[in-house]
Amino acid sequence: MEDKYTNYGNIKIGFGKNPAIVVIDFQRAFTDQKFAMGGAPLIERAVENTQQLLISARAKAVPVVKCIMGYGSIIEMPHWKVAACHDLILGRPECEFDKRIHEPSYDITIVKSGPSIFFQTPVITILTTKHIDTIIVTGCVTSGCVRASIIDSFQYGFKTVVAEDCVGDHEERAHKENLRDVERRYADITTSSQVIKYLHDLKK
Amino acid sequence: MEDKYTNYGNIKIGFGKNPAIVVIDFQRAFTDQKFAMGGAPLIERAVENTQQLLISARAKAVPVVKCIMGYGSIIEMPHWKVAACHDLILGRPECEFDKRIHEPSYDITIVKSGPSIFFQTPVITILTTKHIDTIIVTGCVTSGCVRASIIDSFQYGFKTVVAEDCVGDHEERAHKENLRDVERRYADITTSSQVIKYLHDLKK
Amino acid sequence: MEDKYTNYGNIKIGFGKNPAIVVIDFQRAFTDQKFAMGGAPLIERAVENTQQLLISARAKAVPVVKCIMGYGSIIEMPHWKVAACHDLILGRPECEFDKRIHEPSYDITIVKSGPSIFFQTPVITILTTKHIDTIIVTGCVTSGCVRASIIDSFQYGFKTVVAEDCVGDHEERAHKENLRDVERRYADITTSSQVIKYLHDLKK
Amino acid sequence: MEDKYTNYGNIKIGFGKNPAIVVIDFQRAFTDQKFAMGGAPLIERAVENTQQLLISARAKAVPVVKCIMGYGSIIEMPHWKVAACHDLILGRPECEFDKRIHEPSYDITIVKSGPSIFFQTPVITILTTKHIDTIIVTGCVTSGCVRASIIDSFQYGFKTVVAEDCVGDHEERAHKENLRDVERRYADITTSSQVIKYLHDLKK
Repeated sequence: MEDKYTNYGNIKIGFGKNPAIVVIDFQRAFTDQKFAMGGAPLIERAVENTQQLLISARAKAVPVVKCIMGYGSIIEMPHWKVAACHDLILGRPECEFDKRIHEPSYDITIVKSGPSIFFQTPVITILTTKHIDTIIVTGCVTSGCVRASIIDSFQYGFKTVVAEDCVGDHEERAHKENLRDVERRYADITTSSQVIKYLHDLKK
Repeated sequence: MEDKYTNYGNIKIGFGKNPAIVVIDFQRAFTDQKFAMGGAPLIERAVENTQQLLISARAKAVPVVKCIMGYGSIIEMPHWKVAACHDLILGRPECEFDKRIHEPSYDITIVKSGPSIFFQTPVITILTTKHIDTIIVTGCVTSGCVRASIIDSFQYGFKTVVAEDCVGDHEERAHKENLRDVERRYADITTSSQVIKYLHDLKK
Repeated sequence: MEDKYTNYGNIKIGFGKNPAIVVIDFQRAFTDQKFAMGGAPLIERAVENTQQLLISARAKAVPVVKCIMGYGSIIEMPHWKVAACHDLILGRPECEFDKRIHEPSYDITIVKSGPSIFFQTPVITILTTKHIDTIIVTGCVTSGCVRASIIDSFQYGFKTVVAEDCVGDHEERAHKENLRDVERRYADITTSSQVIKYLHDLKK
Repeated sequence: MEDKYTNYGNIKIGFGKNPAIVVIDFQRAFTDQKFAMGGAPLIERAVENTQQLLISARAKAVPVVKCIMGYGSIIEMPHWKVAACHDLILGRPECEFDKRIHEPSYDITIVKSGPSIFFQTPVITILTTKHIDTIIVTGCVTSGCVRASIIDSFQYGFKTVVAEDCVGDHEERAHKENLRDVERRYADITTSSQVIKYLHDLKK
């Protein structure tokens, strides 16, 4: 049965000419140990690597689109099975960006209400006005909002690249399984150092 | 670290009062052994169980929305890494529904171009006009188009239920890992017999 | 030629059982004379009538979804031909709700970036979780964001009703022509007093 | 009051570097006199001018995306107030393209179910993969599906240009009023000869 999978992943996508970086949910609910879902080691690693990647991106004037998940009130939520998501109310510290990746004078900020940064947000319009062809995905959680955002980046027609060490999860197993799934179908998986090299060489 | 996951999956969704069934990609490319990705055992099992579930759904006048993935030509595709997806051209046998689940005089047919049945298709409008509150997910592939459709069903605000034995994959591992991910966050996982019982008892 | 139009508007939609009110762009940029586009007589009339209509809606626990148009910065905008739209930056007084229609403890607030309240916003998910079947449209400007929101309400499958005296424009001609267009195709046109009567009689 | 409108339309959009042509609903229901809504003079004029414009576009390898409005069955429709729309069932002659504008080996075909060619269709993904920055709008009906498509083209962030003599309506008044509305806000209005000149000079 397994060899049916020889049909998967046999095409490489590559980088395009006009990339944007998306940063998924690096907000204190997930990056600050103080909160129920905050501060897992793989997420901590991802924040630190993304911090470096964003310095390179901003230096080359590559757009950085960062999102938080947040709601005006609990009645605006879809049917979350994760009780801690009920704390993601705008104005609370759970919805603040992690300072390490936040550059408010440069970055574009999106408030999203579903797992995907593209779902019911203005991201597509922002990317269209800038003629973006490539999305580089960073953020958390790999098996949740990152996975959903990768699917949508692919569905919208972008070349989609995931920097493996810039995305994180509460669990290594879920992290790896999800990257395996998406690499077979939708996205190239690479590292932050490869992305930084690509950004450095980019002609803009 | 793992105990961070005690925050996941601690809420049960349940069934609503006005369900619809979605059937993802039970087309010959995936169900007929003749084709490169066709006829995996878990998918065969899913077709047979879905066939029974749909008989119950139609008997209770519950809407059945079935999709195929198909394109007018190769230039209309997103950047698929799966070479066999390049054969999903409308008019070819790969895009025909599997006969076992097809009832053209009853079912609603959707042609989709991304993994999710909801993405850039009229499904939401059809569900809105019928005041649907619950989506029961069947089809294939669990780690691809089924996963993407579950995320969107959740994101659009539906109570989302997956009949585990009505969804299938080329690989048991990917099947299980993906159901684990979505059960923690977005959807209840149940069986076709539980869904059939629910449909039987439904007051319409 | 004109009699080709006998084909238009020959079906009445009617009210459903589970309505929501949408309020488009009653923000100070359009309702406060201090600003370039603020305080036109038809918009003033619409604010006052909507204020009354919302009292009835809240008394019956009917959802009220209000939006403003606003952007994080000018680089997030689509290609507006209206220079005054460049002032719609979040945090500025142009993006504050008009106090007469604002009840923050009850209403749901949406920030939108295009003309339609449905476009790239969480509105559909909020309406789906509440099983809404009918949208009652109020707000401004009739020939701009109201028109766009009516089209989307129709496209998403809702019964769509416009209270004529609750929508306003800078110009009477554009107001009337746009209501004529949408009444022929997408929506019933009625008055605030008819909507208030419907809300009063509503069984919830 | 009218001078509030001095705020409208005071910015020119211009053409970009990478255009696509969209052709809205030039299907026999609207272009063939045999049908209730078919063959109005302004629509006939628009078909003939669009035919010429498309020859120029194809000669320069500019993408042509054409749509019809069509449904699998009546239960899939939103709440149309236009009785003749109930005849737009896929497979019927009302859903065939007008031969004058149809080049199936070149054009991309979209089946849509709402007024806008962008709504719940794969158009955005197709345009993203081609890095389109400019949409040139042709088709019918100006005060219906053309207006809705112009709004969405703008909302998605494209430079939007309407060739006035390539769009048509059943009524001259509605045609003019709608072009006036959109020119003030969302799109430049030009002529087919200007577009043909632009296409001729385009460097690709």
